[in-house]
Amino acid sequence: MPPTEPPAPGTDNTHWVDEELHGVRYGLAASVIEERQSAYQRVTIIDSQTYGKGLLLDGCWMTAERQERHYHESIVHPALCGAASIERVLVIGGGDGGTARECLRHPQVSHLDLVEIDGLVVELSQRHLAAIGGGAWSDPRLHLTVGDGIAWVANAPAASYDVVIVDGSDPAGPAEGLFNRAFFENCRRLLRPGGVFATQSESPEAFREVHIATVRLLRQVFGHADPLYGWVPMYPSGWWSWTFAAVDGPRYLSADPARAAAVAAGCQIWSPRWQQGAFGAVPAFVERELAG
Amino acid sequence: MPPTEPPAPGTDNTHWVDEELHGVRYGLAASVIEERQSAYQRVTIIDSQTYGKGLLLDGCWMTAERQERHYHESIVHPALCGAASIERVLVIGGGDGGTARECLRHPQVSHLDLVEIDGLVVELSQRHLAAIGGGAWSDPRLHLTVGDGIAWVANAPAASYDVVIVDGSDPAGPAEGLFNRAFFENCRRLLRPGGVFATQSESPEAFREVHIATVRLLRQVFGHADPLYGWVPMYPSGWWSWTFAAVDGPRYLSADPARAAAVAAGCQIWSPRWQQGAFGAVPAFVERELAG
Repeated sequence: MPPTEPPAPGTDNTHWVDEELHGVRYGLAASVIEERQSAYQRVTIIDSQTYGKGLLLDGCWMTAERQERHYHESIVHPALCGAASIERVLVIGGGDGGTARECLRHPQVSHLDLVEIDGLVVELSQRHLAAIGGGAWSDPRLHLTVGDGIAWVANAPAASYDVVIVDGSDPAGPAEGLFNRAFFENCRRLLRPGGVFATQSESPEAFREVHIATVRLLRQVFGHADPLYGWVPMYPSGWWSWTFAAVDGPRYLSADPARAAAVAAGCQIWSPRWQQGAFGAVPAFVERELAG
Repeated sequence: MPPTEPPAPGTDNTHWVDEELHGVRYGLAASVIEERQSAYQRVTIIDSQTYGKGLLLDGCWMTAERQERHYHESIVHPALCGAASIERVLVIGGGDGGTARECLRHPQVSHLDLVEIDGLVVELSQRHLAAIGGGAWSDPRLHLTVGDGIAWVANAPAASYDVVIVDGSDPAGPAEGLFNRAFFENCRRLLRPGGVFATQSESPEAFREVHIATVRLLRQVFGHADPLYGWVPMYPSGWWSWTFAAVDGPRYLSADPARAAAVAAGCQIWSPRWQQGAFGAVPAFVERELAG
């Protein structure tokens, strides 16, 4: 919490910026810094006094400086501490740079392809959200491609990555093709032996059906898949999930001690203990539906 | 999610009902059914189309029919499945009846004292939120006292309860005295050998300092205390905690299989597996602060 209250919305340029969904809204007192329409979506950068600068796409909250660690630590470290090797990493989406930043904290990563469809997201994130991307944008291991992630995974050679991470938005609009069998099968094809796949898999509360269907489909495609539960206060319901998958056993479930030790001190949320709990905290209704 | 969108706020009696805190707001499209001022607080009953009927105290979200299980299952079952015996239970607060309802699902409970300071909360919950209290209000094992829980724990005989649960609101207003050493020491005094204490312990994000201080204090007073992390979407940040304490070892950590089996099928969130994960999912920053 900040030491001072923000000015009441209505004074200066601060007003409530809300995402509304199904009769629920989550808003931050904020001012809009820049808003532009890309070929894909409306990209809005705001400055909130409680959570710092933030990003919305088509009016949906994506990230903010002081609550992005929940998301980025959760999607990255179970994969990067679980895969047999982590030399080559592919990130689909992730145009704010936070996922790449967390991956590049692992010194064993030598090559990271970041494939974001919307160049405007990258441009505005680099300009306004430098605190999220951190040094990733200038790291020589990062290779940025503004392009279609679905085509990328269809065309990349088999067994060309140790880790594939899908950091996309909800399955509507440009991210719709990131939640189907053909896409997941290509991701599996790209993985080297001992590789790990990770994707954000929506809220078990606000997007219950998509969440369950995604976990089920990943189990069919990879053989092993498990959801991990955490929080992103600005997302619908605040309760969020990421699902990890692998062909040769659920190796994402336990963190390699040496890799964990190298990144843990820099984490706010993630730790090997937290990870074990977050994989265990499958709510009863999801456990029943997945078993059914 | 409901199958249909609610009417846009502004049509009929539906409008946005928000809680605002530190530059963040969470709102439901709802109509106000009844609103009255008690000696302690403003009590508001709303009807929302997404989460059903709900309760606010002084404008802060307390509960709603279709998201109350997160809270009530989380605070009750680790205590009721962990204590050596569960014949006599004390609930301080909990005027909506949800905590009592979950406790009374355990057939071994023979006497439950519910001590709620605000009779208006009970009256309006019985009238409008019958789905939350369920059959608890007419259960002969329930003994309702409208009165001061702080005085109750000061005056009750030592070793008179197997489980003590504090289901109060934030530590401001009538619930302020539910978060200090004298109160916790009295709660410890009331416990029989093998007894378990439970309290809601705020959000590690929105009320970080109160959360840490509460866990620390409970460890000092009882000897053993551990936070469990879950979700209440309508509470600030959506990320919430309950802390369990015991004198003779952390027996709340593992659920008695027979008691768990008797209630698990009726739970939406809680299961022994979920409980183990939720105790494990201590975020890194809390673990560091508690160790320091």
